[in-house]
Amino acid sequence: MGKKQKNAISPTRAEDYPEWYQQVVKASDLAEKSQVRGCMVIKPWGYALWENISRTLDDMFKATGVKNAYFPLFIPLSFLEKEAEHVEGFAKECAVVTHHKLEQGPDKKLVPAGPLAEPLIVRPTSETIIGDSFSNWVKSYRDLPVLINQWANVVRWEMRTRIFLRTTEFLWQEGHTVHATKEEAIERTMMMLDIYKKFAEEFLAMPVFTGKKSPAERFPGAVDTTCIEAMMQDRKALQAGTSHFLGQHFAKASDIRFQSAEETEEYAWTTSWGVSTRLIGGLIMNHGDDDGIILPPKIASAHVVLLPIIRTPEDRQKVMDFTEKLANELTDTYYHHRKLTVEIDDRDIGGARGWDWIKKGIPVRVEIGSRDIDNNSVFVGRRDKGHRDKESIARDEFVNKITHILDEIQNHLFERALSRKNSNTVEINDSKQFHDFFTPENMEKPEIHGGFSMSHWCGSETCEAKIKEDLKVTIRCIPFEGEPEKGKCICCGKDSNQRVLFAKAY
Amino acid sequence: MGKKQKNAISPTRAEDYPEWYQQVVKASDLAEKSQVRGCMVIKPWGYALWENISRTLDDMFKATGVKNAYFPLFIPLSFLEKEAEHVEGFAKECAVVTHHKLEQGPDKKLVPAGPLAEPLIVRPTSETIIGDSFSNWVKSYRDLPVLINQWANVVRWEMRTRIFLRTTEFLWQEGHTVHATKEEAIERTMMMLDIYKKFAEEFLAMPVFTGKKSPAERFPGAVDTTCIEAMMQDRKALQAGTSHFLGQHFAKASDIRFQSAEETEEYAWTTSWGVSTRLIGGLIMNHGDDDGIILPPKIASAHVVLLPIIRTPEDRQKVMDFTEKLANELTDTYYHHRKLTVEIDDRDIGGARGWDWIKKGIPVRVEIGSRDIDNNSVFVGRRDKGHRDKESIARDEFVNKITHILDEIQNHLFERALSRKNSNTVEINDSKQFHDFFTPENMEKPEIHGGFSMSHWCGSETCEAKIKEDLKVTIRCIPFEGEPEKGKCICCGKDSNQRVLFAKAY
Repeated sequence: MGKKQKNAISPTRAEDYPEWYQQVVKASDLAEKSQVRGCMVIKPWGYALWENISRTLDDMFKATGVKNAYFPLFIPLSFLEKEAEHVEGFAKECAVVTHHKLEQGPDKKLVPAGPLAEPLIVRPTSETIIGDSFSNWVKSYRDLPVLINQWANVVRWEMRTRIFLRTTEFLWQEGHTVHATKEEAIERTMMMLDIYKKFAEEFLAMPVFTGKKSPAERFPGAVDTTCIEAMMQDRKALQAGTSHFLGQHFAKASDIRFQSAEETEEYAWTTSWGVSTRLIGGLIMNHGDDDGIILPPKIASAHVVLLPIIRTPEDRQKVMDFTEKLANELTDTYYHHRKLTVEIDDRDIGGARGWDWIKKGIPVRVEIGSRDIDNNSVFVGRRDKGHRDKESIARDEFVNKITHILDEIQNHLFERALSRKNSNTVEINDSKQFHDFFTPENMEKPEIHGGFSMSHWCGSETCEAKIKEDLKVTIRCIPFEGEPEKGKCICCGKDSNQRVLFAKAY
Repeated sequence: MGKKQKNAISPTRAEDYPEWYQQVVKASDLAEKSQVRGCMVIKPWGYALWENISRTLDDMFKATGVKNAYFPLFIPLSFLEKEAEHVEGFAKECAVVTHHKLEQGPDKKLVPAGPLAEPLIVRPTSETIIGDSFSNWVKSYRDLPVLINQWANVVRWEMRTRIFLRTTEFLWQEGHTVHATKEEAIERTMMMLDIYKKFAEEFLAMPVFTGKKSPAERFPGAVDTTCIEAMMQDRKALQAGTSHFLGQHFAKASDIRFQSAEETEEYAWTTSWGVSTRLIGGLIMNHGDDDGIILPPKIASAHVVLLPIIRTPEDRQKVMDFTEKLANELTDTYYHHRKLTVEIDDRDIGGARGWDWIKKGIPVRVEIGSRDIDNNSVFVGRRDKGHRDKESIARDEFVNKITHILDEIQNHLFERALSRKNSNTVEINDSKQFHDFFTPENMEKPEIHGGFSMSHWCGSETCEAKIKEDLKVTIRCIPFEGEPEKGKCICCGKDSNQRVLFAKAY
């Protein structure tokens, strides 16, 4: 392995991380930009991944009593205005429907016609429209809790978009629950955050911090926003999911009241929580290497690709028979409650074929040539290892241990990411050191490096804003992990009771 | 059973069918109107049904090589305009996004701001936006066929809306395929129509006619529209699914070209096909009775409800233990590839509890009282039978034959609907008789009745338009079933080569 290795993606992560991201998305065939500003096309390989993500989460939600429903895409402006902070938070970035048909204008061109009496907002989130239904559904404490989730598309007109990470339209789930007491609502907020953490770590192999957002970073209208924060390979943070305790803000805005067991009239307590196709961006930046993306087996679009090697026309029948028989056996195998997904790629395009699957991040590649068949063996490559690091395995042994191999890959990806997260999270107490840690030149030098800093914060919005202004660093969360600790604010030096997680973020 | 039976739904079907429909939807808890014009809220019971419908169809599509993807919600006006008939067909009923933010107007009220250079149409269907991607994906005959499906929401600003049947926003799937030859595209069009027929009949228990639409009833821009048409209990037709052969119209509009094996540059051939939440409306009107909806077991939101009867506090433990043990055994049982879904309803609300589940159409209700437990039996009601027609069955026998009972219900619903469809489809050759058949007064008298008429049509748009004008009757399809036959047009008396299916329709 002494000679220079060819990599599939150019530039490499070290050369230009943001551009590597764009190229790796393209090479992976997960998604592409569309002609509609900031909107993406999720291609079959990416959508299969989203299906696995969403079905897994859906099962986890349902196991806690949550049921799915579906609410209107459009939110009347007056609904959005019911909660003052909420509308302010979304007013600057929403798609507005103002007309309901097209007519020929004076120059024969089609123009919007049929103006609406009240503009409709394409949902950026659905608290207010769902709240309207909840206000009808909830009459008595016997109707509570209401535990609802919706899988839907939402639109936020962001100025700068980046595929999966921040797109004008994205797919997500938004859970909305109503409770009789504050305690129950807080418990649900934390329960869903725990599910997000579990899902991120056990399925996406993406270790996360959990914590509470600072007031400045809260969801518009929430009392508390909790979140999971993951570290990407450029040591920047990605907010990967949020769970909000909404207090009675939205219950008051939407008039969600109930008669208590004591026959008093009370406002309810609500929560909301969501993850989106952004998770796929996190996945790419967590595990991808200079050869493409790497899909964790538990949610991979497919698990195994079989690559028959047909050198002569006489080989074809023999190799394809062996391949198809193997595929049938593999697809009858269960891996974490779903059947293995196996692709057969018999395209005659030379070495580009293997590279295609490496770039697409499939966990296991299996080459099947005439000689392998004679030995009753297969030639196996794992995506978590180097692309030349392949191994001959007896065919039946491979079938028997495929789920074990997949688990190994899953665990390896998690361990690798966890070790990266741990070694790049440091406690900084010195203001100069904090500044150096986050200056852009140092970010590109891992030996001085940037990453996550657990540093003291006095709690003032002024310090938070100053750090953001000076260094483009934000408080990612006030972590739930760790013990309270006395110290001095990294910005102003005043007393602090807590370390918080600082990082640059997507 | 001599005394007058109480019915759960008022009015009954016979009294006022359209109002019965509204009331039965409400009583079933499937969905409700929202505050947004023409948009519905799909409630958990309705969404679970849609999940089962969509997952079943999804498996059927995937078995034919179709893959899912996702394309933008918004279509630039210029894209929609690429196909002249297409834009004309949708211009009168589309939601138009014209601004991308909200700002305070002069009177401090929020008003649309940030006008878009080009209006965006909320997709009413996606041929043109998907066609744009396809034009990039397809370069060579080796890239074909492209077989894509999308599960999505779409918006059509209909003047009159009715829940599930015609709503401003609805959920659907839209398949879009690209082929090298006309023959292949036609074959795919028919393959998907066959899947729709199979799904409607085998899963929804809803018998359908298949056929081709007359030119006047085609999808805007299609060369041919094929459809499945079902008969509701008021003997009106419901178009329940369509599969379009688009020829090269959209390939030319979106510039989908490929290099053939012979190295010539060719336009591709495309198809599109879809079914929507409208199917749920069809389901309700096909099987519902004066006590509520009836869900066919194969796609029911849940299969069995257990109703513990707790007469004394001492009963509780014993009855609930028995109930939960039974639930666990049932949920371990597979019924047509998915596990049985079992609800336990232990609300203490008297007789209203049983009626709730009757109205919701659950296939099997099981009452469990202390005496039943002593006899080791359960008291079982089937939704396809009268609400008093219940039967005591030994507990273990019930567990053993539950899938058999469900199959019996499924088959019974289909046979009942088929017999209704057959007995209300007649061949009418006489113009006066045709007129009488379709006059509104007779529609309300089943003995003279309305229904489906297979009658001769000369093929002229004038005759088709006259019949529609005079009787509000349309050609539902030119059926694929039956032999060609010479005759005289039911309208003008000129020569005809075919009978076509006439009916009033939703």
